[in-house]
Amino acid sequence: MAPQDRFVAETAFHVRYAETDAMAIVHHASYIVYFEEGRSSYARQRGSDYARIEQSGLYLTVSEVGARYLKPARYSQQLVVRCWIEEMKSRALTFGYEIADQLTGEVLVTGFSKHICITHAGQVTKLPDEWRAWAGT
Amino acid sequence: MAPQDRFVAETAFHVRYAETDAMAIVHHASYIVYFEEGRSSYARQRGSDYARIEQSGLYLTVSEVGARYLKPARYSQQLVVRCWIEEMKSRALTFGYEIADQLTGEVLVTGFSKHICITHAGQVTKLPDEWRAWAGT
Amino acid sequence: MAPQDRFVAETAFHVRYAETDAMAIVHHASYIVYFEEGRSSYARQRGSDYARIEQSGLYLTVSEVGARYLKPARYSQQLVVRCWIEEMKSRALTFGYEIADQLTGEVLVTGFSKHICITHAGQVTKLPDEWRAWAGT
Amino acid sequence: MAPQDRFVAETAFHVRYAETDAMAIVHHASYIVYFEEGRSSYARQRGSDYARIEQSGLYLTVSEVGARYLKPARYSQQLVVRCWIEEMKSRALTFGYEIADQLTGEVLVTGFSKHICITHAGQVTKLPDEWRAWAGT
Repeated sequence: MAPQDRFVAETAFHVRYAETDAMAIVHHASYIVYFEEGRSSYARQRGSDYARIEQSGLYLTVSEVGARYLKPARYSQQLVVRCWIEEMKSRALTFGYEIADQLTGEVLVTGFSKHICITHAGQVTKLPDEWRAWAGT
Repeated sequence: MAPQDRFVAETAFHVRYAETDAMAIVHHASYIVYFEEGRSSYARQRGSDYARIEQSGLYLTVSEVGARYLKPARYSQQLVVRCWIEEMKSRALTFGYEIADQLTGEVLVTGFSKHICITHAGQVTKLPDEWRAWAGT
Repeated sequence: MAPQDRFVAETAFHVRYAETDAMAIVHHASYIVYFEEGRSSYARQRGSDYARIEQSGLYLTVSEVGARYLKPARYSQQLVVRCWIEEMKSRALTFGYEIADQLTGEVLVTGFSKHICITHAGQVTKLPDEWRAWAGT
Repeated sequence: MAPQDRFVAETAFHVRYAETDAMAIVHHASYIVYFEEGRSSYARQRGSDYARIEQSGLYLTVSEVGARYLKPARYSQQLVVRCWIEEMKSRALTFGYEIADQLTGEVLVTGFSKHICITHAGQVTKLPDEWRAWAGT
């Protein structure tokens, strides 16, 4: 369940045909991309932009990802991805995700992703201040 | 250029990180998926839904696709795909596309896709009436 | 580490350009697809074929997936995905994965996927006998 | 038809599940990625490697792509992509493609891609000598 004690970004979109597979449902790897778009949108909604973070010389690499699939989604279905910060450390953070049917509210997929902040040369470094300010909010 | 004598569906979206490649630009195959989402949106904007067409026993298969790449797009850039009907026959139709930067209006990619209407058994058949009504409009 | 007490399928391939992202490394969702191709190959190497399982009326849906990213891979790099059965129940099974650089042997990504056997109508059912025979081997 | 008067690179692979769509066939955008892997393999088979070309400071950008879909392919089907040089200019080249069923030989998809050689700064420049040597061979 999306937490109620902090900012949760909601991003709505339709399932694209290319994201489905031969079972006529959304392919399980597509949700990993939905998670990613959820956190891109999280940053935008909080006044940041990951593109700008990258241009400043940092990367937020993915160190771990996990997803649980509760119910399938289908082509053209309107989904909403909810994204929040699960944990924030000085050089790493964890996002939580929940993907639900926009109309019924039913949760279809839950997941998380762990990230480490590195320079473009690959050195582990502190998260940008504008991101660290989100801790606990 | 998008035509001015008929309905043109506009669909706006942000470039997802997964859609970029090692050149740090949107991968050329991603635009083929943008075209597809453009025509999904075209149908929705005209009160139809390709999902319902499929459920009625028809498929609109892709027989040909083409794209010209004029300028690259990057992660997080806001794009708009414009989609219109280029040509309509009784059993086939052609969609035209134009993908532009949402803010500057600059056209980045143009393209088309040709489609044939078939039954789920693979037999070529007439396009659904609700789609044929779009001819010339 | 890939286990030594059971069958481990190895599948080698080059990283495709489309699988990279703007960090010039393989996008993290691409590995989920590599895992999937690893288990497709596992079935083929053991004389089965998931395509035939599906034609017989069953699906092996994905209920959970997880991946840990240790080191990035790049375009054209030759990788090997190792896949084995981590756990087998009557109606569910877990695959384990390891993706390594083919030349150096260095492990880049590890992961798992959990699956449930269902009929095309969505009813949970027993795994096919030819798959259950792989338990503990 | 693949030409008989010059080098044609053949690359065989199985269709991945993620490459299929809700029609239970390979999604049309997946073939654009197959084309790309076909030309990656073309370079490798001729003793070059596009990764090395990029490291030397050049990109071979895609300026146009086209595909004709004759017959669908399905999950696990073994395909072969044939790739050859259709036309070579000093700063641009065109690849031709043909994708066939590996067992029956039947051609499923044909296509082409046009490319322009640019520096990493975006300036149009001459193709690398090792590539230009392939003209007419």
